[in-house]
Amino acid sequence: MHTVLTIVVAAGSGLRMGTAVPKQFLPLDGEPIVMRTMRRLAEGVGRFLTGCSSDVNNTVENSNAAHPNHSLLLVLPPDAITRWEELCRQHRFQIPHQTVPGGPTRFHSVQNALRAAASDADVILVHDGVRPLVDDATLARVITTAAAYGTAVPVVPVIDSLRQLSPQGSESVAVDRSAYRAVQTPQGFRGEWLRAAYEQPYDEIFTDDASVVERLGRGPIVLTDGSPQNLKITTPFDLVVAESWLHQPK
Amino acid sequence: MHTVLTIVVAAGSGLRMGTAVPKQFLPLDGEPIVMRTMRRLAEGVGRFLTGCSSDVNNTVENSNAAHPNHSLLLVLPPDAITRWEELCRQHRFQIPHQTVPGGPTRFHSVQNALRAAASDADVILVHDGVRPLVDDATLARVITTAAAYGTAVPVVPVIDSLRQLSPQGSESVAVDRSAYRAVQTPQGFRGEWLRAAYEQPYDEIFTDDASVVERLGRGPIVLTDGSPQNLKITTPFDLVVAESWLHQPK
Repeated sequence: MHTVLTIVVAAGSGLRMGTAVPKQFLPLDGEPIVMRTMRRLAEGVGRFLTGCSSDVNNTVENSNAAHPNHSLLLVLPPDAITRWEELCRQHRFQIPHQTVPGGPTRFHSVQNALRAAASDADVILVHDGVRPLVDDATLARVITTAAAYGTAVPVVPVIDSLRQLSPQGSESVAVDRSAYRAVQTPQGFRGEWLRAAYEQPYDEIFTDDASVVERLGRGPIVLTDGSPQNLKITTPFDLVVAESWLHQPK
Repeated sequence: MHTVLTIVVAAGSGLRMGTAVPKQFLPLDGEPIVMRTMRRLAEGVGRFLTGCSSDVNNTVENSNAAHPNHSLLLVLPPDAITRWEELCRQHRFQIPHQTVPGGPTRFHSVQNALRAAASDADVILVHDGVRPLVDDATLARVITTAAAYGTAVPVVPVIDSLRQLSPQGSESVAVDRSAYRAVQTPQGFRGEWLRAAYEQPYDEIFTDDASVVERLGRGPIVLTDGSPQNLKITTPFDLVVAESWLHQPK
């Protein structure tokens, strides 16, 4: 049986929404986005760990617990932790979890999380706080792949054509989108690999957790299938999308 | 006053939806997706040409005409043209337009359209048939930019991280997503440029209309802002998204 630590990164200020509230706290169907994300992960990872199929309990709302082998850790902006605790009381959010203050970059936020984590889980997932729709199948693929190969990055095809900007940004060239994959989260790692990776010095080329682990040189990053529904909420349009998806009969 | 030709490309078989009907004919809020796209373009381009603001007529449904300076041309799979004509009768779709059979590639489809077009418009837009949510502001930016500079490609930031596959596809490297832009449609061109571009021989590196025009060597492709809502419907999830967006109070 695996032990899993899930680190949810929600340390950004989320300016693109044009709201005063950090975007991870905006309501999605009545509940802050990141709370919805935490519930989804507790449910989906729990279901994987118990080997249950999805017909046992298919609503996020009924879930207020985590599997005993699953620890959850939430990274927040340092000045938002008190607000989060109030939101937990208000929404009766009782899933056990640890909160950790974020750092100046995503790298530092995940590093803080790993140093603070009380868990020595053999698989660690790192997930965007604003991806509340991640599905059970993606979670299962990432956990099993990470346990077997050390890394697992869920990807989907790139739908729009792509253009690459020149270093000056003044010109652009068409590139072949079929040679690219859009990277989602959770990215999954063998616990020991991720902990070792985040002891390396920071480098600004680290764009995501996989690139930090890649630097260890333990082999290629393993890609697995993500899911179109696992969108990252970054604009008001995405919020409408996520809300309607939650209301859709499944 | 500009004259505009809009070429709507809907010549694909749309296999990703897993349906027997080509995806461009799937119903979106009761109307085939591509019909919705045609209405949106007739309305949005018409509004730009008359200089009207969006408060004059803000529902797609009420529109069954095109501006006199705007021609619409729809490229369909050759075996779908009869079906389209039936759908037009059934849905009382009366916006004047020309239909043209598609070719084996997108290049050949647009080439067929340009050769068949009765219009000598000074601005030509080329739009994906499965982008029914394109907004007035994007249309206005593309038309004005294309008229002024010869080309206009609407782009949005890439939200997900990107990985580039090795030529063998067995490995991948993280790339900096901030150096890329996701390309939407309509792409807009000075009419004379686009007609000249499509007289060039086909090359498989032509990924979109901009890359064909680029080959002419008349200067860099000009990027303009697209819009998050202008999504390309490629999965059942996208269809749910588009439907909910149409029902959203604006």
